[in-house]
Amino acid sequence: MYRSHNCGELRIADVNKEVTLAGWVQKSRDKGFMIWVDLRDRYGITQLIFDEARTDAQVMQLAKSLGREYVIQVKGTVIERESKNNNIPTGDIEVLVKELTILNEAQLPPFTIEDETDGGEDIRMKYRYLDIRRNPVKNSLLFRHKVTQEVRNYLSNLDFCEIETPYLIKSTPEGARDFVVPSRMNPGQFYALPQSPQTFKQLLMVAGMDRYFQIVKCFRDEDLRADRQPEFTQIDCEMSFIEQEDILNVFEGLTRHLLKKFHNIDIDKFPRMTYDEAMRTYGNDKPDIRFGMKFGELNAVAQHKDFAVFNNAELVVGIAVPGAASFTRKEIDALIDWVKRPQVGASGMVYVKCETGGHYKSSVDKFYDQEDLAKWAEITGAKEGDLILILCGPANKTRTQLSALRMELGNRLGLRKPDEFAPLWVVDFPLLEWDEETGRYHAMHHPFTSPKREDIHLLDTDPGKVRANAYDLVLNGNEIGGGSIRIHDKATQELMFKHLGFTPEQAQQQFGFLMNAFQYGAPPHGGLAFGLDRLVAILAGQETIRDFIAFPKNNSGRDVMIDAPAPIDQAQLDELNLAITLKD
Amino acid sequence: MYRSHNCGELRIADVNKEVTLAGWVQKSRDKGFMIWVDLRDRYGITQLIFDEARTDAQVMQLAKSLGREYVIQVKGTVIERESKNNNIPTGDIEVLVKELTILNEAQLPPFTIEDETDGGEDIRMKYRYLDIRRNPVKNSLLFRHKVTQEVRNYLSNLDFCEIETPYLIKSTPEGARDFVVPSRMNPGQFYALPQSPQTFKQLLMVAGMDRYFQIVKCFRDEDLRADRQPEFTQIDCEMSFIEQEDILNVFEGLTRHLLKKFHNIDIDKFPRMTYDEAMRTYGNDKPDIRFGMKFGELNAVAQHKDFAVFNNAELVVGIAVPGAASFTRKEIDALIDWVKRPQVGASGMVYVKCETGGHYKSSVDKFYDQEDLAKWAEITGAKEGDLILILCGPANKTRTQLSALRMELGNRLGLRKPDEFAPLWVVDFPLLEWDEETGRYHAMHHPFTSPKREDIHLLDTDPGKVRANAYDLVLNGNEIGGGSIRIHDKATQELMFKHLGFTPEQAQQQFGFLMNAFQYGAPPHGGLAFGLDRLVAILAGQETIRDFIAFPKNNSGRDVMIDAPAPIDQAQLDELNLAITLKD
Repeated sequence: MYRSHNCGELRIADVNKEVTLAGWVQKSRDKGFMIWVDLRDRYGITQLIFDEARTDAQVMQLAKSLGREYVIQVKGTVIERESKNNNIPTGDIEVLVKELTILNEAQLPPFTIEDETDGGEDIRMKYRYLDIRRNPVKNSLLFRHKVTQEVRNYLSNLDFCEIETPYLIKSTPEGARDFVVPSRMNPGQFYALPQSPQTFKQLLMVAGMDRYFQIVKCFRDEDLRADRQPEFTQIDCEMSFIEQEDILNVFEGLTRHLLKKFHNIDIDKFPRMTYDEAMRTYGNDKPDIRFGMKFGELNAVAQHKDFAVFNNAELVVGIAVPGAASFTRKEIDALIDWVKRPQVGASGMVYVKCETGGHYKSSVDKFYDQEDLAKWAEITGAKEGDLILILCGPANKTRTQLSALRMELGNRLGLRKPDEFAPLWVVDFPLLEWDEETGRYHAMHHPFTSPKREDIHLLDTDPGKVRANAYDLVLNGNEIGGGSIRIHDKATQELMFKHLGFTPEQAQQQFGFLMNAFQYGAPPHGGLAFGLDRLVAILAGQETIRDFIAFPKNNSGRDVMIDAPAPIDQAQLDELNLAITLKD
Repeated sequence: MYRSHNCGELRIADVNKEVTLAGWVQKSRDKGFMIWVDLRDRYGITQLIFDEARTDAQVMQLAKSLGREYVIQVKGTVIERESKNNNIPTGDIEVLVKELTILNEAQLPPFTIEDETDGGEDIRMKYRYLDIRRNPVKNSLLFRHKVTQEVRNYLSNLDFCEIETPYLIKSTPEGARDFVVPSRMNPGQFYALPQSPQTFKQLLMVAGMDRYFQIVKCFRDEDLRADRQPEFTQIDCEMSFIEQEDILNVFEGLTRHLLKKFHNIDIDKFPRMTYDEAMRTYGNDKPDIRFGMKFGELNAVAQHKDFAVFNNAELVVGIAVPGAASFTRKEIDALIDWVKRPQVGASGMVYVKCETGGHYKSSVDKFYDQEDLAKWAEITGAKEGDLILILCGPANKTRTQLSALRMELGNRLGLRKPDEFAPLWVVDFPLLEWDEETGRYHAMHHPFTSPKREDIHLLDTDPGKVRANAYDLVLNGNEIGGGSIRIHDKATQELMFKHLGFTPEQAQQQFGFLMNAFQYGAPPHGGLAFGLDRLVAILAGQETIRDFIAFPKNNSGRDVMIDAPAPIDQAQLDELNLAITLKD
């Protein structure tokens, strides 16, 4: 061992101890006759002191040569500091150095190793091993470890068994795009990397394992949106002989445990909301309920006058922005411009200021009187001093637009507090959703989700209306997990594939192993998966996942540190019976 | 929840309770007026009783229809059994059924769901979800979970932080063959799946994470020998500011903890042996030291007579087989045939029977007298009643042959007891080994292993003699882990690549990111990886890993259950800019 103590543990009680420390030079101050060095490791910072009067001249000389991020080992005596530093736990002491060894020199790092660094995202990713030395990243990784340990212990105590499922599986064109892996031993054939262990965990239920979990990497070859990664980590779970209520209880318990453990927050019972209600009230299936601004639908009280824009709209809907009646004309115009940006796509916005004394002032005063506007205020829940913002148009689109506006205002007004946690179950998701591009229905969750029994008769007549036994856990406006009660009999599974446009042959070829398994005694089962990267980020009060992943990829799916992906040797291609067909 | 209790928990104290159980029909006995059903789930078996006198006629009728592996739910009353079954924990009670629901029917399984099944390996793999219902496989998976939980908690308590490293990395032709993953977003380029997180864990040390571990899947595209898997799991660890001694201590502690926890065995200090000693004494770098039969080198006492076979041999070496002097001529001939099989490859074998009264009888009595043979007995440690078996030839080959014989005899004589655990550290491995095929030196562990400082000068003159700071943990004749102190400076790493036949450009292109990292303050570091699949199997007293993997692949790398790998769509190939060049 190169050290007797780490850089975070010495205290006033250790004074006079002879110690050996090792770590990185965070910084040094050279006053000529005295040199102070902040020595850093994962556990903290300890101040070293080299003093002409008490330190050997040769050691003194060597100390003067130390550069930032040099790796050194020192032996010395713990002494009480003259001027204490209350900001760090070791701030009462320093180590008077007797011996100094340079273990490794360091080039000047390309950015400062400080909490607030001068390095941009790109350079930090290229030198991620230096970036991780910074407290914000280091602490994110340590926090992630703590969360996963808690999750594992919590689930293990509930008799969940972690079982590793294979990474080299079979490609299924349904759903997102697979990463594939050519097989050398089976020429012309490919494995696929799992998008999730879905079918395997269901087979484990057929196998009688009863309660399964796995913290597992999953892969999707998608064009990356901001903050998506081609490889990501799931807390994947499945249970047998349960109903939806049982799953919600178990994972509500897990989430409650994490909130208590890491934030000392007690949340009794998580609220629940149907998908329909979430869409109507927040325009969103993952509403952030830390703040209000619930949607008020105004058709009944806004389509009786001569305002054609409203009269022709499928939906007129507004929100009351608290305290925003004081917004200037310029500020409101900026908001109107904001909703008209192509990313939001509204064609315009109506506003109503709820001024003091119960007076309303709106951009449509020409069409509506005070009595009309009072009704709008009532429906949107607007109070004196609030600002009502109203959008109209096709129902779904308008809800999405108003939801975007609500979230933007939530951010701007500081209503999305990072230390507040508002979990919410959204239930009763639709089974199917219409896909414009392919002109057919897709499974909203996946093809193994069971329809609600009472809705099955709608599959032929009104497929979009069939509700699924599917649920999402939403935390602070982020979907952190989702799952469903699965189909567990062959007939229903075949019916589902039929409605998803599979021929019986396609269904058999791709998922025959699962439907076959259902014929050998499959128990009722269901489960859920949490996105670990996001869960950890949100638990840490942040929304970007990148700092919670040691070596993330950029938006082109590249690891810029190791420079991957990269070309491979012709010999490798030959062995795999592959040729590249790039026409460039 | 479909049940109030599981099938393993009801006891005599539960008599008179109204309970609901769910599970699989293990078997049923129909006596006409009474039917007994063994209901099984992961937790155990509970006997159900349907009694004409006490059970509704309709339920009775339904019970008669139950087939093996049907999934059912029953409601009933716990009653005391008339004839108790002491073999199962629930054997004092049975459940008198009032209501019966068939949750799912089952086709007759293709093999019996019993501890000793009638199903062969192939059919069990195809229906692995049924195979896992059998206790031996189910318990193996549950045991694996317990071991991994212990490992995680043990290492976490020692401040090790589990950090996920990427699965989509860069191919490096050094070492075993990579599985590669074509990148759609970076046409013509490929990721590789990691053979181990080696470089990433070293970068985490450069990053200051100090103590890392990860239980992680690794991938090697090798022609599969028996009991190898293309994907396998490692307990991967790395530490900074340590020396070899520190790493051995930590992982000896972990192993000791597991042996104590799962077998209540206390092993104080693990023995250590150098690689040279292991090869000389056991002909093997992973000796099973649960039994003796150490090698005795006989050159000095066997090359002084007219026996040309011995005189011309580089090495004459023997072992004393305890109590085997009683072997018949036929048995000994069979052993001679065994060592002459091509898999072993010896050209012959000499034997000496150590008979009672201090008399020796050998197959070379023509050449050697009793005094000679007494010396052989002394050197091999043979006692009265033992049989000395002697091979000769080129030193390395002969040692390997004698080692194979020793292991075979250890098995035959029952000396390799599954409930005995004999760990051993093998240290001071050679840095390089000569590869006949490529005509150059390869790294025996990997190119990042540091040479012993005192041997570096031999790199140019006698590379095969350079010892590495490398060590293996051996348990019962199996290598369960290995590791090394790493190189942590660019100059030594460059020197190493040079001796492995890399041009500076190749080294830079493939491992530039690591050597670059070493220039920014790399701490001294080292680590180790345990093979989890094997560790778990050996801890369970078994040597084949397949039952400890939920969904293993066969020797052609196929998952016969899901039928992977498989061809993919032309559209997928096109998107990846790939063509298959099979000439067939």
